[in-house]
Amino acid sequence: MRMYDLIYKKKYGGKLSKEEIDFIVQGYTKGEIPDYQMSAFLMAVCLKGMDMEETTNLTISMRDSGETLDLSKIHGIKVDKHSTGGVGDKTSMCLSAMVAACGVPVAKMSGRGLGHTGGTIDKLESIKGFSTSISGEQFFENVNNIKMAIMGQTADLAPADKKIYALRDVTATVDCIPLIASSIMSKKLASGADAIVLDVKMGSGAFMKTLDDAVALADAMVKIGTMAGKHTSAVITNMDQPLGLAVGNSLEVIEAIDLLKGKGPKDLLEDCISLGTLMLVGGGVTDNLDEAEKMLLKTIEDGSGLKKFAEFVEAQGGSPEFIYDTDKFEKARYIDPIPAPKSGYVSRIQTDEIGMCSLILGGGRETKESVIDLSVGLILNKKLGDEVKEGEPLAYIHSNDKAKTAQAIERFLNAYTISESFEGKVKTTFARVTSDGTVYF
Amino acid sequence: MRMYDLIYKKKYGGKLSKEEIDFIVQGYTKGEIPDYQMSAFLMAVCLKGMDMEETTNLTISMRDSGETLDLSKIHGIKVDKHSTGGVGDKTSMCLSAMVAACGVPVAKMSGRGLGHTGGTIDKLESIKGFSTSISGEQFFENVNNIKMAIMGQTADLAPADKKIYALRDVTATVDCIPLIASSIMSKKLASGADAIVLDVKMGSGAFMKTLDDAVALADAMVKIGTMAGKHTSAVITNMDQPLGLAVGNSLEVIEAIDLLKGKGPKDLLEDCISLGTLMLVGGGVTDNLDEAEKMLLKTIEDGSGLKKFAEFVEAQGGSPEFIYDTDKFEKARYIDPIPAPKSGYVSRIQTDEIGMCSLILGGGRETKESVIDLSVGLILNKKLGDEVKEGEPLAYIHSNDKAKTAQAIERFLNAYTISESFEGKVKTTFARVTSDGTVYF
Repeated sequence: MRMYDLIYKKKYGGKLSKEEIDFIVQGYTKGEIPDYQMSAFLMAVCLKGMDMEETTNLTISMRDSGETLDLSKIHGIKVDKHSTGGVGDKTSMCLSAMVAACGVPVAKMSGRGLGHTGGTIDKLESIKGFSTSISGEQFFENVNNIKMAIMGQTADLAPADKKIYALRDVTATVDCIPLIASSIMSKKLASGADAIVLDVKMGSGAFMKTLDDAVALADAMVKIGTMAGKHTSAVITNMDQPLGLAVGNSLEVIEAIDLLKGKGPKDLLEDCISLGTLMLVGGGVTDNLDEAEKMLLKTIEDGSGLKKFAEFVEAQGGSPEFIYDTDKFEKARYIDPIPAPKSGYVSRIQTDEIGMCSLILGGGRETKESVIDLSVGLILNKKLGDEVKEGEPLAYIHSNDKAKTAQAIERFLNAYTISESFEGKVKTTFARVTSDGTVYF
Repeated sequence: MRMYDLIYKKKYGGKLSKEEIDFIVQGYTKGEIPDYQMSAFLMAVCLKGMDMEETTNLTISMRDSGETLDLSKIHGIKVDKHSTGGVGDKTSMCLSAMVAACGVPVAKMSGRGLGHTGGTIDKLESIKGFSTSISGEQFFENVNNIKMAIMGQTADLAPADKKIYALRDVTATVDCIPLIASSIMSKKLASGADAIVLDVKMGSGAFMKTLDDAVALADAMVKIGTMAGKHTSAVITNMDQPLGLAVGNSLEVIEAIDLLKGKGPKDLLEDCISLGTLMLVGGGVTDNLDEAEKMLLKTIEDGSGLKKFAEFVEAQGGSPEFIYDTDKFEKARYIDPIPAPKSGYVSRIQTDEIGMCSLILGGGRETKESVIDLSVGLILNKKLGDEVKEGEPLAYIHSNDKAKTAQAIERFLNAYTISESFEGKVKTTFARVTSDGTVYF
């Protein structure tokens, strides 16, 4: 087999066999296929596509390029939730507690990564004493006892994906549904869960800009997961504005805790319910979505979700008082309002730019070496469709540096459009994709 | 400007500006743009195309990446003929003599290259004493005195093309009309001629398999040349079988000489006439194709073409007796017929495989270090449409090694299809493409 011939085949729209895809993935991972051949191949895939069988084979081949985790020491059906990434997305924290409170084990391996805020691990470290540096044994024990634990990811999952993604990132071959779907799913399939729930973000803060694209991506991932023998489902959720009101690290933890206390933003709750119901179904707790919703809401009403979160935090060395009294979180030195420059309605938010405000303030990593400032960020006061009067705060900037505050405010104002009227309806979730098909809301 | 953005733009079918194309070509040539970005870009060009303006700008940018030759010391309008490459193509030799005999200066810089036979330089070296190692001064003097000279190419013409071509060759991005056209034309424009005549081969022994593709390539090259201010025209000629009967080095020289003596194969003569008429028009000798044809035929009838060839050979140290008596050429040790395995009509020839027979016999270079055996090759006895009786020779193999003869015969027989009947008409030339449009024959 020669890589040249496989590039040529895909260039003319040919379908690659499992053996051919394995040859490419394993050859590239081992360094036997050079970058310049792989990038030509990836561009051909972007422009000629891959069918579901090829995409699934690509996923399996990338999964098998490294370790796969064995979670068999955890009792019950393990459900993994994955988001394609969004601004203000703190569902991993509150949703995990709600689901765990319903009896579904949540065993999260998480990375730190780059972005406008830190990863879930970074965020949770704003709770005094909390640590993800626990042993595998401790991790399994915690999940079995409390139903919820999180640890830093040490395993080398899907190294082929890591290498291919790095190449895609510099050759304009990222935005391609078969490549995105296989990249996400290769890691998910390697991470040992029995069921997978996907949160596919769509809008100005997401890769997927249209509902068609988002559904196509969700559908591809659900099909891959299903073909690989995992119960897989997805929800398409709105990223035309940040999720909830808080963007930042400790600010997001506080909002997640507030949600568990019944004081969370409506869109965040809706997101947690749409994902959580699929997680309860995937976890085999119920097969009825309405019943699942009731169970989840009950964890808020009866405080079992909050209690679960406190137990989880305490089991990993964190101070549970932070959960019951969020005033204990370290605060940023300066809190400044961003006054609306004119009256009207918020008609458009350039969501990724709101993420950039958090990054500017020091809330995220620009490089692997960056140190995150956990207390900074934004609290939105006005969201899409809200009426606003000139001078009224659009948001509050939490900052430890006035110069950075000024930069963030300028960027923020460019990201908000205020119009004379707003006719649209702001949705939180657009569709649910399961192996039975797609339901549009 | 970032290469990433330019790859992205082309991926979505955007049109690149002159500045953007210069950035890519010069950046890649200098090593500032890595291979893996360039190959992704080239694949995007293959699948999304380039319009004529982009293709011309690419050509100009590649031309300007290195030296351009100054032929101003040569009197008159210099016409350069270029063939996209074919099996048995010896037109450069006989046609040059015919055109020079008509008063158009032929100043050829030629390489050696890889292939099923050597380049024109290698072929001519089968004439005792002939050398292309002449000084630039001697070269100009010979062209001015005799109207014909050939020298080895020493200048670094279009190095960008050389580097890009090497990458295309390993990334399945060769077969793309804008890339082929710009590659050929960048070298032609750098080589200093005033007018360019292109021989675009089409068929089983050529890159272009269909008339549409061949005309599209010819049209692109004519447009590029015209936009660059050179009188440019092209002919589409048949490569569904070798041109003429001889394939090899000295064998092809002998056939070229035979043509000048009026004993050449009909298709070779027709090829010389269709290209030669355009060369005489390009050279400003006449603007009438019929008159040009008469002038060319006259160089055969009155022996002026043969005389010109002998003068040219002598001026470069070669023995003119070889021209008047081709028995002086060194002969291969063994000449073996290839008997037809059955009776019928030659209905298909896999032309590139006939080239491979010559390579197997030692007539071409597999690597730059290969030493060419100038006396070996094939003389065809039956061509497309010819009736053949079982046992009758399809061709004669000229070889210095019986084991290679056997290999070549096996390969040859696989390349010839003999059917019960043959209905088609075998054409030599299909179309003429000039800036006035395309004329189909």
